[in-house]
Amino acid sequence: MSQIHAYAATNAKGTLEPYSYDPGDLGPEEVEIQVSHCGICHSDLSMLDNDWGMTGYPFVPGHEVTGTVVALGEQAKGLKIGQRVGVGWSAYSCLSCPQCISGHHNLCATSQGTIVGRHGGFADRVRVQWLWARPLPEALSFEKTGPLLCGGVTVFTPLLAYGVSPTSRVGVIGIGGLGHMALQFANKWGCEVHAFTTSDSKEAEAKQMGAHFVHNTKKPDALKKLAGSLDLIISTINVPQDIPGLLNTLAPLGRLHVVGAVLEPMQVPALGLIFGQKSITGSPTGSPSALDYMLDFSARHGVAPVTELFPMSKVNDALEHLRSGKARYRIVLENDLAA
Amino acid sequence: MSQIHAYAATNAKGTLEPYSYDPGDLGPEEVEIQVSHCGICHSDLSMLDNDWGMTGYPFVPGHEVTGTVVALGEQAKGLKIGQRVGVGWSAYSCLSCPQCISGHHNLCATSQGTIVGRHGGFADRVRVQWLWARPLPEALSFEKTGPLLCGGVTVFTPLLAYGVSPTSRVGVIGIGGLGHMALQFANKWGCEVHAFTTSDSKEAEAKQMGAHFVHNTKKPDALKKLAGSLDLIISTINVPQDIPGLLNTLAPLGRLHVVGAVLEPMQVPALGLIFGQKSITGSPTGSPSALDYMLDFSARHGVAPVTELFPMSKVNDALEHLRSGKARYRIVLENDLAA
Repeated sequence: MSQIHAYAATNAKGTLEPYSYDPGDLGPEEVEIQVSHCGICHSDLSMLDNDWGMTGYPFVPGHEVTGTVVALGEQAKGLKIGQRVGVGWSAYSCLSCPQCISGHHNLCATSQGTIVGRHGGFADRVRVQWLWARPLPEALSFEKTGPLLCGGVTVFTPLLAYGVSPTSRVGVIGIGGLGHMALQFANKWGCEVHAFTTSDSKEAEAKQMGAHFVHNTKKPDALKKLAGSLDLIISTINVPQDIPGLLNTLAPLGRLHVVGAVLEPMQVPALGLIFGQKSITGSPTGSPSALDYMLDFSARHGVAPVTELFPMSKVNDALEHLRSGKARYRIVLENDLAA
Repeated sequence: MSQIHAYAATNAKGTLEPYSYDPGDLGPEEVEIQVSHCGICHSDLSMLDNDWGMTGYPFVPGHEVTGTVVALGEQAKGLKIGQRVGVGWSAYSCLSCPQCISGHHNLCATSQGTIVGRHGGFADRVRVQWLWARPLPEALSFEKTGPLLCGGVTVFTPLLAYGVSPTSRVGVIGIGGLGHMALQFANKWGCEVHAFTTSDSKEAEAKQMGAHFVHNTKKPDALKKLAGSLDLIISTINVPQDIPGLLNTLAPLGRLHVVGAVLEPMQVPALGLIFGQKSITGSPTGSPSALDYMLDFSARHGVAPVTELFPMSKVNDALEHLRSGKARYRIVLENDLAA
């Protein structure tokens, strides 16, 4: 195989520079994908900055890849050369542990992230285990699908995993990269959708994306007015929140589901769970099966992230745009590297 | 109707004294029960002491009643005079709210506790709404069934409500009034059962009640050895716990369920929920349907509380015995009041 041309940082918070590497022989379970587009997720920044202490350098970010299969390992299953596929957070799982054999490959203890100990999709090509290259429905474009594969499936999973009904009332906290997709999913799922934001300026957009009601949580009593009403709240933000207040907005049997990696412990009152039989749960990205359901659902209902497009050669500008908090709502890189 | 003869306290933490009251006309939805036995639950003490600020005096404790229907209101359904019944925490629910019409009457916002604003079962007779007087299976005795109706259904509900499988590994924290019934239920449910205690002296008893493994959580590494293994933990204690450590003992998709009313907020790490897609949940007592399933299950499998019997006239001795922490494991009063 020829060299892979990528963009890499050589140190934490470093600028990305052109970087070529020899990927070696294609592993028997691997597929190689010619990258068309790659989304930028906030976790690419966290990994670039080594916020989680698990980044290896040189570091090639990118785990929201769309593209075409150009090579198949001899044990790669279910794919063919030329097939349109997408890759999200995960790139490998063991296939044999209890989680893998029950369809929860994203919970495999030895799973590998696409950018954790591996080189990601800010490149002309990328390699992953066959399982994690999911076929794309015809209706989904390369340009718009990358952000669905990590951020999208992360907020789709709670709807799928907990049997959320179209009769449910669903709240989404944080109208950003994840939240703006969560609003669309919940709306198309048939639910009554409530957006929670601290910014009045996002009200019109939140409604456009599917919110039936928008609540500014900076206003006193914003949560109190909703007491006992919501069946599910998906929290996409990573700052500490008023957990007792949020539990109070849940209807009996309601669930607060967190996907935002807030580092401070949540202060959870036991009685806030006991009275009303409530739940607090969390989940990471999604399983291969969840990815397929999510892609199919997005194609059928026209769910798509709001994106800003940058050529991959302008990757540092794109990262800076995300870092500044100005991205509305997901950035996608278009591969302009020579193959 | 004639006077009801009971034992009541006239002030917080007060001694119980003989107390008679006129119950007035029987409400149309009410039934009157001749009390045979009444269990003492720790929440009787909490209410006696006004720990929760909602006790009315004179206060008649007792919400684990067994006895016989002696009068039926004209709208009382499903019961007949002379029927053997049991009453637990709840005595009334509205029957028309979303929770009631979906079978979760115990989550009704206007439900009333048997000893909250009402006179309880430390008496010769007690009145409740017909729905909350549940028929007792033949095989269950008056003497042994009281504690099942509050403590029992509280720990049975998580097995029922969350679709726990006989293939699951279940942990029970606290081998006391609730925990010793939880061990029996989980064992008879077919699960692998783990008891958590801080007392080596309870090991043999815990095994006798159904634990396959007993762990002393005072020993370092007790929790670490179980990392990633349990599908459900039922916590019955009301003191702060090592929540990150407990989440770590859960298998992926595992659940920590709290029924102990600890007042300090639980310190819950979001990432401890997200990685592994875990849950923290809570629930209060159980629904009428859960009570019936629990009673039927107990009859079929011979689940019964370990009890100490006191005549009702010795109620103050019994309360003191419970208060001292010496009860093994539930105290039951036998009605020796003149009817």
